[in-house]
Amino acid sequence: MREIFDAELAQLGEDLVAMAEKVDTAIAAAGRALATTDLPLAESVIADDEAIDALNRDLDERCVMLLARQQPVATDLRVLVSGLRIASTLERMGDLARHVAEVARRCYPQPAVPEHVTELVTSMGASAERVADRTVRLLATRDLAVADAIERDDDLLDELHTASFAALLGGTWPGTAQQAVDLTLLARYYERFGDHGVSVARRIRYLVTGEG
Amino acid sequence: MREIFDAELAQLGEDLVAMAEKVDTAIAAAGRALATTDLPLAESVIADDEAIDALNRDLDERCVMLLARQQPVATDLRVLVSGLRIASTLERMGDLARHVAEVARRCYPQPAVPEHVTELVTSMGASAERVADRTVRLLATRDLAVADAIERDDDLLDELHTASFAALLGGTWPGTAQQAVDLTLLARYYERFGDHGVSVARRIRYLVTGEG
Repeated sequence: MREIFDAELAQLGEDLVAMAEKVDTAIAAAGRALATTDLPLAESVIADDEAIDALNRDLDERCVMLLARQQPVATDLRVLVSGLRIASTLERMGDLARHVAEVARRCYPQPAVPEHVTELVTSMGASAERVADRTVRLLATRDLAVADAIERDDDLLDELHTASFAALLGGTWPGTAQQAVDLTLLARYYERFGDHGVSVARRIRYLVTGEG
Repeated sequence: MREIFDAELAQLGEDLVAMAEKVDTAIAAAGRALATTDLPLAESVIADDEAIDALNRDLDERCVMLLARQQPVATDLRVLVSGLRIASTLERMGDLARHVAEVARRCYPQPAVPEHVTELVTSMGASAERVADRTVRLLATRDLAVADAIERDDDLLDELHTASFAALLGGTWPGTAQQAVDLTLLARYYERFGDHGVSVARRIRYLVTGEG
């Protein structure tokens, strides 16, 4: 029995990595769709989010089934409860990547981002991609140095989020209201993406060290 | 043992209701702070969110402890896993109430909402309050007619969210960029609030009927 359970826990870990990889692909493609005004790419990100949602439902059911069948205690219980939560966090990161792609789609054929804030939005996208890359690596390796790096990426995303407010509210916004709305949303999506990355990082840290 | 466990499950249910009541108070007060440009009220909502976060941490720990100690199966397991998730959803609803209050605070002493969209924002606030009221009632009674009503409130919030985009992007936004940013955020916060209410409604429906 124990061997089967161990195999199931290992499978769960692999599925979380696979889910994080899909999120990583999605956030990178969404940023590219935004930067290059690429409608088919935006639409593919939006369509592919369903696969991430399906993975979440599947992982979720299996965690609950294992809780019921294996009656795990101590570490195993912690791994399963963390698995439930990490899957749900990754699902929300996938939603945010989809939301970025939806902004690109809504604005098409216009670029969503006005020229004078392109660099800001590109930096947000790059930071979010780093968070996603590192989330994959952290789930695969449980290397806590990667968790630290995610926290730093998130600090940068918070700074860029604040900078977006400064750009919007500095009193001289040269763009349209639509562009103000879109930058507000994009900055919020990327900032939340970072927060969710940190949430995964802290759960893994807790699993590894036992300290919350 | 069973009696103690039943008492603990009942306590868990009561604590979820108490948490939902705090969320209800918070979203109502945040809407009032926004409508009346009331800085102390906005600040009290922001400060009180810590209590909701603390309740969530406490509920969460107790659910995991009960999972470990009681090794529940079937219905009990479903109740505990749902409890974990509902607490975390309520915590996010509390965060959104805080975010609404933060918009009121950031704009003070100016009103955050320009006059021509006051009615729209007031309607959003009222719908979100209804969602919160009903969430309290649903958790206390498990009356599925209340769950249906939450889904309808959320449909209305989605319509109001769409209407906010129309107001912002109709080509004749008469407000400032700051007001466009704030309306974008407020509409998004209220819309998410409704989504989370629906998430609680569906979890309770699943607990009651066994159908997801």
